Amino acid sequence: MSLVFIGFMGAGKTSAARAVAAEFGARPVDSDAVLEERFGMSIEAWFSTHSEHEYREQEEEAVVALLDREDAPVVSLGGGAITSDRVQQALRRHTVVLLDVDPDTAWQRAGGRRPLARDRRRFDELHAERLPLYERLADAILPTSRRESVRHALPHIREIPRGAKLVWAEAASGSYPVLVGDGLVGRLPEGFVVTDANVGGLYGPPDAIVIGAGEQHKTLTTAEGVLRELARRGADHDSRVVALGGGVVGDVAGFCAAVYQRGIGVVQVPTTIVAQVDSAYGGKTGVDLPEGKNYAGAYHQPSAVLADPSVLATLPPGEAAAGWAEVVKTGLIAGGALWRRVREDPPLDRDLVLACARTKLDVVASDERDDGRRQVLNLGHTIGHAIETATGYARYRHGEAVGLGLLAALTLSDRPALRADVAGLLAARGLPTTIDPAVDLVAVEAAAARDKKRRGGVVGFVIVESPGYVRTGVPIEADVVRAALQELRT
Amino acid sequence: MSLVFIGFMGAGKTSAARAVAAEFGARPVDSDAVLEERFGMSIEAWFSTHSEHEYREQEEEAVVALLDREDAPVVSLGGGAITSDRVQQALRRHTVVLLDVDPDTAWQRAGGRRPLARDRRRFDELHAERLPLYERLADAILPTSRRESVRHALPHIREIPRGAKLVWAEAASGSYPVLVGDGLVGRLPEGFVVTDANVGGLYGPPDAIVIGAGEQHKTLTTAEGVLRELARRGADHDSRVVALGGGVVGDVAGFCAAVYQRGIGVVQVPTTIVAQVDSAYGGKTGVDLPEGKNYAGAYHQPSAVLADPSVLATLPPGEAAAGWAEVVKTGLIAGGALWRRVREDPPLDRDLVLACARTKLDVVASDERDDGRRQVLNLGHTIGHAIETATGYARYRHGEAVGLGLLAALTLSDRPALRADVAGLLAARGLPTTIDPAVDLVAVEAAAARDKKRRGGVVGFVIVESPGYVRTGVPIEADVVRAALQELRT
Repeated sequence: MSLVFIGFMGAGKTSAARAVAAEFGARPVDSDAVLEERFGMSIEAWFSTHSEHEYREQEEEAVVALLDREDAPVVSLGGGAITSDRVQQALRRHTVVLLDVDPDTAWQRAGGRRPLARDRRRFDELHAERLPLYERLADAILPTSRRESVRHALPHIREIPRGAKLVWAEAASGSYPVLVGDGLVGRLPEGFVVTDANVGGLYGPPDAIVIGAGEQHKTLTTAEGVLRELARRGADHDSRVVALGGGVVGDVAGFCAAVYQRGIGVVQVPTTIVAQVDSAYGGKTGVDLPEGKNYAGAYHQPSAVLADPSVLATLPPGEAAAGWAEVVKTGLIAGGALWRRVREDPPLDRDLVLACARTKLDVVASDERDDGRRQVLNLGHTIGHAIETATGYARYRHGEAVGLGLLAALTLSDRPALRADVAGLLAARGLPTTIDPAVDLVAVEAAAARDKKRRGGVVGFVIVESPGYVRTGVPIEADVVRAALQELRT
Repeated sequence: MSLVFIGFMGAGKTSAARAVAAEFGARPVDSDAVLEERFGMSIEAWFSTHSEHEYREQEEEAVVALLDREDAPVVSLGGGAITSDRVQQALRRHTVVLLDVDPDTAWQRAGGRRPLARDRRRFDELHAERLPLYERLADAILPTSRRESVRHALPHIREIPRGAKLVWAEAASGSYPVLVGDGLVGRLPEGFVVTDANVGGLYGPPDAIVIGAGEQHKTLTTAEGVLRELARRGADHDSRVVALGGGVVGDVAGFCAAVYQRGIGVVQVPTTIVAQVDSAYGGKTGVDLPEGKNYAGAYHQPSAVLADPSVLATLPPGEAAAGWAEVVKTGLIAGGALWRRVREDPPLDRDLVLACARTKLDVVASDERDDGRRQVLNLGHTIGHAIETATGYARYRHGEAVGLGLLAALTLSDRPALRADVAGLLAARGLPTTIDPAVDLVAVEAAAARDKKRRGGVVGFVIVESPGYVRTGVPIEADVVRAALQELRT
């Protein structure tokens, strides 16, 4: 079994393969180099007298042969090689690593210097076309941004459980593996498991530290109980917390790990949709104060995230539906292929969880501390949180409130058609698209005005131009907000 | 009034002056360049036919004239210029900035390339000789390590209150000004002041958030009260906490700032000796759990530290004495000039506070997260904390326990003469040098074995080879620890 690097032009496959092969004391083999040797000339020169079709034939033959070799433990493939069915077939026997590169970076590196990198528009189209294929074939996905990533990720790549996929997450304060796959919850890593009464009964070990289930337990008092239990059990600097549960468990256990002896590791094992597609990634942890949600917390990146979509089947139907709002939000932020998939109301399987996780990680990588880009993730949450606060966290599930918040945000964005689409998606999963007449909208408006994200007294809203194009920090006048809330009545 | 950069050869004075002058749109003037113009040759060439004494005469005249010029807002001086009394006199009219460089770095930059940098031993001696003079003359002390420091520090340097000195603190996660000077407590910055009942009555504003005084209030419950009060008063991301008080206030308020909405700024205004010489710097914050001291906390560098030694005069005598143990600890860690001063049992004035603060900052700069060098600061604290824990934080003040811990550490270090010296210094301030027979040493030993700093189950002790040479993470057998505790009985 070899390690095979795939990815778009300019992803850095050859140098990644070189770095990894050096770790093994092996020589990397590059399919482009093999072809150039066969041609007796550069690919570029050969291309000038042959068609792309002829090239792909030659490439397919060379790559299939290469993937059969016993003496090539580390291989890098030309960007288009994986379009061949025979190559895809051959890849199944190997560990396939996608080096993920965004089109801007790829163009900077390869633009004008490769046969298929002459025209920027065509280049971007090719990138968008190929990406889903790369993602499907990959066992592991690594960002191209940092040279040391490949080396740090390597031990984790070599131990990917069957059927799972790995994404290497990077943030300013650290990098970590994200594994998505059925059955992971049965392979909890060592550590002090923190879970809630519901999840603990299904998947927790007998000695788990159990907190009450539900947002009302996301308090400093609960955190203190966990911290003291860690201390009583002798947890030290080298110990690790395993947060097994939904958003509340992840936030509380993550916060406890962040502050226990000023910080120990935490592995997040999310068991709800919201946690698997969003909250388990990115290092936000915290508890609520009576005065506001997440008012006491810390940024603390996990040591690893293990997301097991098979556990989502055990969620109560209402809970599963509520989680869907976060998937819709993620689709709106990502745009492109993910939004197209979300619009089809698909099952929430490994690949959809993975795509959502990648969207979240991508945003966090560029803004760990929530100073800019990360605020896109707040889409639908300013009003969503305000609805929760105004109703004492009792009337709506978080996801239901976020669904309503998304609709309000789309009203504020002046996107009625998109709002109707989203309302349809929410309704299809049984989520509310109008607000309970008993809810006091004045209280919601007041809670929104106290939003934690405000800076210098002004609340900035997240606005959708179109799926994939989201603006943050947009100040909106009180009567416009009021009108958007009113529209939830109808 | 000009900004005058002083410091040793290789400190980077000329380039710092250039960077600062650029901010003003001015031209920097360098005294060495003025001299070279006067000589019509390089200083090195001139030196080959003249004595150092002749050189200093020429330099004195040139520098005094230069410091009289109205058209030289930014000046850098040759390393030895400040040895002249007339130059020292002239500097009083200006803002003097010391660029602090350690001898290793200075030698790398200047070694062999300057007349007084031919011989490494002489070079190091000269550095040690000059440092106290530089420190005395400087209004502000900046590390030479980072280029952007000077620019970030500049606005703070221009607003140093009369009689205060500024040290620019640098750590991996951020840099901040430390001001030491009498009267600073009367100029509290804007923010939400958190203080305790004792200090609040003396120096706090009427609307301060007041917590109970004493270690028994360093709890999550106290922190929750502060956090909720911040929320009720509408503190947001741009708000700031001002921690006015001793170690407990600094730790609790710092922790609240670290976690309030996942982190807002905190200005530390330490009012006890321990806080002014040690705990206010370096960003360690936290509260105790019943199971252990500082078991819940965060690393959170302050936005600024304002240390006012004049408030130390209002400390109760027992409290003042207890703080002295931390000064002795700092002297042992620093060695050299600071240890010589501490041995003379001096008054705790601005310059001594400053020297202690610099020692602490120097350690923290190299190891913010307590993975290595920072552990030297734990000298005397493994046993000291254990004594506090075993006696329920009731029998001894923190400083008294640390004093006993220092003596035990010196027994473990097998340094009987130094132990006797330190016992003398502690006794001179009325601190205990033997432990109360009622204290259960078995409980102390057990508490030490649970020390928070242990890794993989092993407690590492901090050992003094000699003042200035301290080793960390030294595993010591239980019976040796027991014997060191027994020695506290005698």
